[in-house]
Amino acid sequence: MNKVNIAEKFQHIHEYWKPYIAAELNGQAVKLDKLKGEFIWHHHEHEDEMFLVVKGRFRMEYRDKDFRDRHIWIEEGEFIVVPRGVEHRPVAEEEAWIMLFEPASTLNTGNVENEMTLRELERV
Amino acid sequence: MNKVNIAEKFQHIHEYWKPYIAAELNGQAVKLDKLKGEFIWHHHEHEDEMFLVVKGRFRMEYRDKDFRDRHIWIEEGEFIVVPRGVEHRPVAEEEAWIMLFEPASTLNTGNVENEMTLRELERV
Repeated sequence: MNKVNIAEKFQHIHEYWKPYIAAELNGQAVKLDKLKGEFIWHHHEHEDEMFLVVKGRFRMEYRDKDFRDRHIWIEEGEFIVVPRGVEHRPVAEEEAWIMLFEPASTLNTGNVENEMTLRELERV
Repeated sequence: MNKVNIAEKFQHIHEYWKPYIAAELNGQAVKLDKLKGEFIWHHHEHEDEMFLVVKGRFRMEYRDKDFRDRHIWIEEGEFIVVPRGVEHRPVAEEEAWIMLFEPASTLNTGNVENEMTLRELERV
């Protein structure tokens, strides 16, 4: 029941695309992640994923089943929910600080497994 | 998959202690609520509850089974998780804007039912 200062937690994060767990509740996790550059295209089979921008901005790219692309910029103080099954790729041209809400078990790379996949997340 | 601007949503909220649903995901809800004054003592039997301060500050008061009180101030950019079963009461001396994360079914007054209880929440 201690409070969490979000900006203070980000001071302990020094890598990109490596989410840390800041809290857990109701089987969900609050994760903090610094983004910079392009992530990989992926989707989550069973999980919706919320991205809230704490600092900076990033672009969420989507593509539908016909691979028609669209994208949307998410600015500081804004959030989006990416529904399960939707192919997406976050891209941050400059460093962005993101708070994620999703099931504690959600894998960062979703249906894809590669060198960016993180099986165990650290707490921050 | 449209983005939500949190501050913009709060412009549509004109009452205190009346949470609005801003998004739903994985059976959870993101709720926005303006606080001012004292809420009632209550707990949630089966649900953990997250309070994130978007603007202003508020005080979360707790009491344990022996009714020993303690309280903690939550400032802008900070959050706390109140675990299920813990008796609590939010108090805001000045207006505070709060983002809540909790199961979509969570009742605002928890185990207590009175004139502040809201059975159906509106979307914002």
